[in-house]
Amino acid sequence: MPELRKDPIVGRWVIIAPDRAKRPANFVEQEADNGDLFDPFLEGNEDATPGEILAYRTPGTKPDSPGWRVRVVPNKFPALLVEGELSKRGEGIYDMMNGIGAHEVIIECPHLETNMSRLSLDNIREVIWVYRDRLVDLKRDPRLVHGLVFKNKGALAGATLEHTHSQLIVTPVVPVSLAEEMNGALEFYNYRGRCIYDDMIQQELASDKRIVLDTPGFVVLCPFASRCPFETWILPKQHSSHFENIQRQGVDELGMVLKSVLMKLEIALDDPPYNFVIHTAPFDTHNLPHYLWHIEIFPRLTRVAGFEWGSGFYINPVEPETAARFLREIEVDPQQSGSPSKPINESRQG
Amino acid sequence: MPELRKDPIVGRWVIIAPDRAKRPANFVEQEADNGDLFDPFLEGNEDATPGEILAYRTPGTKPDSPGWRVRVVPNKFPALLVEGELSKRGEGIYDMMNGIGAHEVIIECPHLETNMSRLSLDNIREVIWVYRDRLVDLKRDPRLVHGLVFKNKGALAGATLEHTHSQLIVTPVVPVSLAEEMNGALEFYNYRGRCIYDDMIQQELASDKRIVLDTPGFVVLCPFASRCPFETWILPKQHSSHFENIQRQGVDELGMVLKSVLMKLEIALDDPPYNFVIHTAPFDTHNLPHYLWHIEIFPRLTRVAGFEWGSGFYINPVEPETAARFLREIEVDPQQSGSPSKPINESRQG
Repeated sequence: MPELRKDPIVGRWVIIAPDRAKRPANFVEQEADNGDLFDPFLEGNEDATPGEILAYRTPGTKPDSPGWRVRVVPNKFPALLVEGELSKRGEGIYDMMNGIGAHEVIIECPHLETNMSRLSLDNIREVIWVYRDRLVDLKRDPRLVHGLVFKNKGALAGATLEHTHSQLIVTPVVPVSLAEEMNGALEFYNYRGRCIYDDMIQQELASDKRIVLDTPGFVVLCPFASRCPFETWILPKQHSSHFENIQRQGVDELGMVLKSVLMKLEIALDDPPYNFVIHTAPFDTHNLPHYLWHIEIFPRLTRVAGFEWGSGFYINPVEPETAARFLREIEVDPQQSGSPSKPINESRQG
Repeated sequence: MPELRKDPIVGRWVIIAPDRAKRPANFVEQEADNGDLFDPFLEGNEDATPGEILAYRTPGTKPDSPGWRVRVVPNKFPALLVEGELSKRGEGIYDMMNGIGAHEVIIECPHLETNMSRLSLDNIREVIWVYRDRLVDLKRDPRLVHGLVFKNKGALAGATLEHTHSQLIVTPVVPVSLAEEMNGALEFYNYRGRCIYDDMIQQELASDKRIVLDTPGFVVLCPFASRCPFETWILPKQHSSHFENIQRQGVDELGMVLKSVLMKLEIALDDPPYNFVIHTAPFDTHNLPHYLWHIEIFPRLTRVAGFEWGSGFYINPVEPETAARFLREIEVDPQQSGSPSKPINESRQG
């Protein structure tokens, strides 16, 4: 059973999950008998994953069989387990609890595609619906308080499989980064009576220099204090603290915006590894006036965060204004799909 | 001029340093005319670095010439510059200031050695004295409030040169990780009247299961909520909030402890890339009863921190108790030097 442990000094929770050490070490699909790489996320290979939790599929097709468009399965090497008691306990100055939670994989398409940006708009919108549906479902579990939807794209960003997928980790505690955001935003709200994210959006739209994309419902920008080159945030213009409260119009537009931004980043940075994380308020809160859900995207360009990792002190060699201008000027057509895809065999050798 | 920018939501300062983008992209020394790799940190190559700030050298030898044992030079691609005004200013909700500070490189030995652990004990002790001397000197500058001594070992940990070296970044603001530590420790002190680090040391020594090394003046342990496999901390037993107040006896013993721990990590993990960071209280504070300086070492084993980087949520596949037991059982002799070194040419090809 994994364990959640709290650092007694800074309050950061860490998942200690010894079983995760057993997962495949390399960024390659396992080789099948015929020498080809085996893709457990491919339609037809449903028995290579744990049984599905949710799938959007053609009416009449059976679970864990072909006929799906987006499919959710438990992570084969989960950081947290859904069964069991929380058993919160202390040991002197330390706090810990059982590693209860959920760790799911969202397989974004049935065919082998490495880049989310090359999925059709409808496909990306269904992926967003799946994010929402899973959060709404897991929110019902009173043991769980927060859901983290994220994506690791590319080996350098921590992905172990190429087939485009996202992950969901739902925890009985609030991740420290989110807690810090919530605290900072609440402090501002108590002082100014406004949401700091909304203020930021107003100021950014007025100056325009860090804006990447401005649509009726969303603004995309490179944040003022970007931690890494081409850090990019997607923020909704309509105030909402909880991602899972998104409506159809929001999903339709977010699909277009997310696809456009990923296309821009891939053209600008030559198909970079990246992470994105959806920041959303904890399950046990409602319609917070001081917090705004948003998506943070980090291309992994710099060799590796070096000492930054240990110190929280970031050195960013690219001004966000430069990155934003660059991204703004790249024209993309989010209606296109499958392009600028290279054939899979070629991209594997890249 | 680099710029310091503050994230308005979480208060994190970031250095935006466009000139840093010009530094060599690859982890190789530049090739000299004869095809050998050129090492700018080698004795005799003093003109390949900016002029020295400090060197421990043989009496009678001149600055920027051979005869030194440990040498400090400005970083050729500095994240911060020492000349200029701070010029703190605001722009709407944003705060910023000029990137005033110091970014120095501590060249730990005059010959090409890739591992600090292979330096002689006397050599390592002199490196520690240099850390102290530079902090004491820079502390006199009223514009600067914090000094971060750190080491990136290996390309995967962010090093751009193999020749063993450390770095010092002195800033006009307190790094966010340190601020969080100080806040957490102060909260505990206000409530309990004791230093949380001292409490932690007592509890760890009593249970013994996360202890790697226990010497008269220091304790080495794998912390309860380790963020990564084999995360290891070195803490002084005598209360002191400021590293730069270390005395001769402390330096002598720390040299032995640091060398032993690095040797243990290198044997356990087969010469891993790693970062270490010295955590010490800000310059403008004195003898804080609630804070303890210490060293945090992070081996960089997991492919890369993936989404952890964006979420602050860490998944560690190795229990700290397992790591500590492993490290504890490895016997090392800190009196030996130059071993288990491979010949440089061999290790380069590894």
